[in-house]
Amino acid sequence: MSTSTPPSGLDPALAAGNRRALAGYAARHFLWHCEGGVAHITLSRPARKNPLTFDSYAELRDLFRALQHAVDVKAVVLSGAGGNFCSGGDVHEIIGPLVQLKAPELLMFTRMTGDLVKAMRACPQPIVAAIDGVCAGAGAILAMASDLRLGTARAKTAFLFNRVGLAGCDMGACAMLPRIIGQGRASELLYTGRSMGGEEGLQWGFFNRLCAPEAVVDEALQLAREIAAGPSFANGITKTMLHQEWNMGVDQAIEAEAQAQAICMLTEDFRRAYEAFVAKQRPVFQGN
Amino acid sequence: MSTSTPPSGLDPALAAGNRRALAGYAARHFLWHCEGGVAHITLSRPARKNPLTFDSYAELRDLFRALQHAVDVKAVVLSGAGGNFCSGGDVHEIIGPLVQLKAPELLMFTRMTGDLVKAMRACPQPIVAAIDGVCAGAGAILAMASDLRLGTARAKTAFLFNRVGLAGCDMGACAMLPRIIGQGRASELLYTGRSMGGEEGLQWGFFNRLCAPEAVVDEALQLAREIAAGPSFANGITKTMLHQEWNMGVDQAIEAEAQAQAICMLTEDFRRAYEAFVAKQRPVFQGN
Amino acid sequence: MSTSTPPSGLDPALAAGNRRALAGYAARHFLWHCEGGVAHITLSRPARKNPLTFDSYAELRDLFRALQHAVDVKAVVLSGAGGNFCSGGDVHEIIGPLVQLKAPELLMFTRMTGDLVKAMRACPQPIVAAIDGVCAGAGAILAMASDLRLGTARAKTAFLFNRVGLAGCDMGACAMLPRIIGQGRASELLYTGRSMGGEEGLQWGFFNRLCAPEAVVDEALQLAREIAAGPSFANGITKTMLHQEWNMGVDQAIEAEAQAQAICMLTEDFRRAYEAFVAKQRPVFQGN
Repeated sequence: MSTSTPPSGLDPALAAGNRRALAGYAARHFLWHCEGGVAHITLSRPARKNPLTFDSYAELRDLFRALQHAVDVKAVVLSGAGGNFCSGGDVHEIIGPLVQLKAPELLMFTRMTGDLVKAMRACPQPIVAAIDGVCAGAGAILAMASDLRLGTARAKTAFLFNRVGLAGCDMGACAMLPRIIGQGRASELLYTGRSMGGEEGLQWGFFNRLCAPEAVVDEALQLAREIAAGPSFANGITKTMLHQEWNMGVDQAIEAEAQAQAICMLTEDFRRAYEAFVAKQRPVFQGN
Repeated sequence: MSTSTPPSGLDPALAAGNRRALAGYAARHFLWHCEGGVAHITLSRPARKNPLTFDSYAELRDLFRALQHAVDVKAVVLSGAGGNFCSGGDVHEIIGPLVQLKAPELLMFTRMTGDLVKAMRACPQPIVAAIDGVCAGAGAILAMASDLRLGTARAKTAFLFNRVGLAGCDMGACAMLPRIIGQGRASELLYTGRSMGGEEGLQWGFFNRLCAPEAVVDEALQLAREIAAGPSFANGITKTMLHQEWNMGVDQAIEAEAQAQAICMLTEDFRRAYEAFVAKQRPVFQGN
Repeated sequence: MSTSTPPSGLDPALAAGNRRALAGYAARHFLWHCEGGVAHITLSRPARKNPLTFDSYAELRDLFRALQHAVDVKAVVLSGAGGNFCSGGDVHEIIGPLVQLKAPELLMFTRMTGDLVKAMRACPQPIVAAIDGVCAGAGAILAMASDLRLGTARAKTAFLFNRVGLAGCDMGACAMLPRIIGQGRASELLYTGRSMGGEEGLQWGFFNRLCAPEAVVDEALQLAREIAAGPSFANGITKTMLHQEWNMGVDQAIEAEAQAQAICMLTEDFRRAYEAFVAKQRPVFQGN
């Protein structure tokens, strides 16, 4: 290990994690707006109900990977324009080409879509999906891969892969959906491809809350702001541990949490909360 | 690898997986009827509420194992005759002999019953259970080990192992039941042996739907027909992956699904669905 | 292996598992009462809503570890005095000191709290929590780590770790809570720290039942008595297997259960149940 000081101008606190700012990111295949630590991604091809394309998949994957190192984004909202969330992979721009491809290229595609989900689970920012109208195929996967989901009564969420001749095992669905709504309900959605309604999704724990269609994005932004105002380093550790402990035994998970929580107890945010409590004030967290 | 052609009369597509027809299977210890790719197993000793015996356990195990290679069965319905599903292991024909046995023979028995569940999870056909009336002990296990469950309001599902002096860990119950209805509810059923009612089972996600008693078998057959009309190779992959990913990490599961879905994208059913969509028709799947 | 007889006065059935009696245990930092095989632990600092301290953590950990070998305790009830369950780690007696500590000491603390949960999961006695009023922080963890939970409509259960600047990964919460109430609902509670109400907890499967506040402890004791009257060796195996199979694959779990259940079929309780059935009587279980 070198004992030399870092080059002047290099902030070690930023350099350690290759950290960088993303608030000003210029998106190409969707809308991006970031304010007060809350980034808002809007899938925006409303005439087609916001389908995904090869390009938007790749850009989303790269963006969520970059968020892992972002210093200025504490929570993310994901929504769709025009009263629908996302209609999934575009039939003409994605499915048409896929039926021409051979195994190695198909695997490149399925890995790209899977890598988007991996990146959504790996970034430290909690992701709040605002889901209205159509939420189908890969769109349903993006909803599932978010941390929290606000829906509307008219939302129609369909894991409709078998309707297009495919298996329900797409981008992690057979692993993740059963943990959210239970194995039996997930099996029904995956074997039949039928839509889950908004009220049904609330009762099953897919949605955290139902909102009026005109309010769902605002409520998702408000929830994201509340989360962003929390101890964001600790929130990122919560997200990491939900992922890490997915298939650990209970005793291993408890040891892993003992280590992770000990790190959090060394943060200034923990001290700030204690001092605020003693002073009968609300803590102001700074994410470190 | 030999480059010679297969012997005349041998269809490589069948030989590759030791595939064979099962529609005409002659069952000995229950009823078997197969029509249009949907097999219907009826446990049929209604005077005793359809208990299981050593013989019916073994035949069910062998049949579900054979289904792994069946070319002509795309979905399975499991039900009981006379207004009850299954009362579990027969007290006189099973429990009586068991109390006389020593450890090695007892393990042979518990492995046989466990092998039935393994075979139900390993066959590619989705299994729809139609559950009315008594569904107890090993009967509750057969319901749990099915993929989908249609019930009735009067169904009484009881994991009553502790009522007969045994543990709740029977044929996979401690692994599977918590994933279907949640850890806390499963614990209650396993520690108390109490019955779960039909409405309760619906709210908890054990049942996918409640039906009128006189309709539950017909609705299960209709659901199985709809599933059988889907892309059955892909449906079998969905079932395989739900099983494979049970205790994988999220990232491993995503890679496993990328590979599995790439295989499905090479099927004719995927192309058929795309071409039907472009032609504004309904796809006709053929399971290859 | 020695073939000599044990020293006179030593009962091999007790010595094999270092078994000992705990009914007369003299608790220092909470109340302990044991009657008819049911132990009742009451957290009792009602003026502060029954917070935990370094001392009560350590004593609870040691007690639950000792319960692993107790011959005279078949079920445990955990409750709080004065209309609240537990307010978690005391701000002045725990959080204040923690903000002064360095990493190794912090890890000692988080491991101690985690060891309490490990001990609760490792003891063979099913634990029934009676939860009224405040159930917060480590209190919510003790509720979660119990096997069954009876609540009240006014119970407020809050995994409020992020409110004090910490992560939701405390004492196993990121592993256990999602399995009880689902991944999406657990994520909301852990990222926001908000309270789960009684009715909500019932619908989500956190509570097994809601009771009137004045009745919740009595109903928990009654449920514990019913469980204690069951085949307690087998119940302990159920608890062990729920723990063991947490992250096993389905096929592994089925083999593990085949072995575990074969052991239970060798107990006298299994024979007692069969003989009682044949004699049309209720079995009297003795836990062996």
